[in-house]
Amino acid sequence: MQFFKLIIAYDGTGYSGWQVQPNGVTIQQLLEEAWHEVTGESVRIMASGRTDAGVHAEGQVCSVESATSLDCLTLERALNASCPDNISILQVNFADAGFHAIRDAVQKTYRYQIQFGRIRDPLQCQWRWFIPSLVDVAGLEQAARLLEGEHDFASFQASGSDRKTTIRNVSQIRVNQWQRSVFGYLDIEVTANGFLYNMVRNIVGTLVAVGQGKRQPEWVLQVLEQKDRTFAGPTAPAHGLFLVRVDYHEPLN
Amino acid sequence: MQFFKLIIAYDGTGYSGWQVQPNGVTIQQLLEEAWHEVTGESVRIMASGRTDAGVHAEGQVCSVESATSLDCLTLERALNASCPDNISILQVNFADAGFHAIRDAVQKTYRYQIQFGRIRDPLQCQWRWFIPSLVDVAGLEQAARLLEGEHDFASFQASGSDRKTTIRNVSQIRVNQWQRSVFGYLDIEVTANGFLYNMVRNIVGTLVAVGQGKRQPEWVLQVLEQKDRTFAGPTAPAHGLFLVRVDYHEPLN
Repeated sequence: MQFFKLIIAYDGTGYSGWQVQPNGVTIQQLLEEAWHEVTGESVRIMASGRTDAGVHAEGQVCSVESATSLDCLTLERALNASCPDNISILQVNFADAGFHAIRDAVQKTYRYQIQFGRIRDPLQCQWRWFIPSLVDVAGLEQAARLLEGEHDFASFQASGSDRKTTIRNVSQIRVNQWQRSVFGYLDIEVTANGFLYNMVRNIVGTLVAVGQGKRQPEWVLQVLEQKDRTFAGPTAPAHGLFLVRVDYHEPLN
Repeated sequence: MQFFKLIIAYDGTGYSGWQVQPNGVTIQQLLEEAWHEVTGESVRIMASGRTDAGVHAEGQVCSVESATSLDCLTLERALNASCPDNISILQVNFADAGFHAIRDAVQKTYRYQIQFGRIRDPLQCQWRWFIPSLVDVAGLEQAARLLEGEHDFASFQASGSDRKTTIRNVSQIRVNQWQRSVFGYLDIEVTANGFLYNMVRNIVGTLVAVGQGKRQPEWVLQVLEQKDRTFAGPTAPAHGLFLVRVDYHEPLN
């Protein structure tokens, strides 16, 4: 058997997320069907993060264990030919025996995309959460700084989750803002060693409450202390979220 | 009566273009319906260019003659509220009496978006023509230089058109190329004092034939000389085309 590492990108619009499920088409399902079409094998393809319905990926990493004798470039070409236009395989590489996309991930980076200002950009509304009035971007950035580091992020996980520990190390939250024509754009990039369920979208919803002037930046420290989802801001919608990059300990081949 | 100048943006995906027609929903129709909803008036809204089905706009300019007493900001807000999310009114201004978006336009700029490389970018394929093998970008740029200036562009107009003159002055063709991850991107921006029907898409199809190594850059001079559509390259698909900007002689208020 050979282990493979796949890097893939997809437009999550209209999909029911990564993970195979009884109702709705998922990325995992289409990728496993493509693998079957190409190799004749029924395999389970694991992804570093099970992105939710409507969430996109620029650099999702997957692991597969397979008996195929096809080489990496042939696999990449054939899988791309078998996948729809909104799913692409960017890279196929051999991986070390036992490689597992979730367990072996060291850190992941997500980007959340916002558009602000009085007028909606009709060419970006599919990829960005539209917030008409974002009056305190400096406050939003300050609040982002306060969330960096190792904390108990229990307030930022979807209610009903039960992870062993809710402590995560958020190594960086980068806020990037620019203006084009009458439109304001804001990207929030979050890197961490692990993410609780809905964590990025809950962090973004909380930061946006500060950006809208509804809360002071220091409020996010109180939210952290409460360790209770009901104290944080709303969950940002899925369509603005991109899984950007997944890092592993050593370069796999 | 008062003349207005509107600047609008839209995602043309799924629309049957600008101009009202019996079958299919058009931007003009929705905008005129919005104007009616806001003011109670049935008006004709003229656009600087009648974009085709699937073509987008970042800065389309429209003219309207109206008896409304609403001020510009109120109109802008109300029209935006009445239009779907993929059409936005960026600006409403009073214009000089007689202002006409087509007749008064001095020059227009279109951008055509391409993605190249072995792998399709699933997050851009809605807005970019995918050309797997673009081997001679330098040649494409050379060919673009040769098309700049005042020429008879008869070879680049859709067959069956009958304009009085097919001479146009293309003041600039800017080619911009960059790489991100495994994807290559190329934008071709064309500015001219006027455009024949399908002219940008025919210029792009012709330049791409050079970029694919099928033709030498100098070939485009022969195409110009023939004054016959059948000598040029194929028509590039609509979904990569954006009307970027329309310039008028003097700032209108």
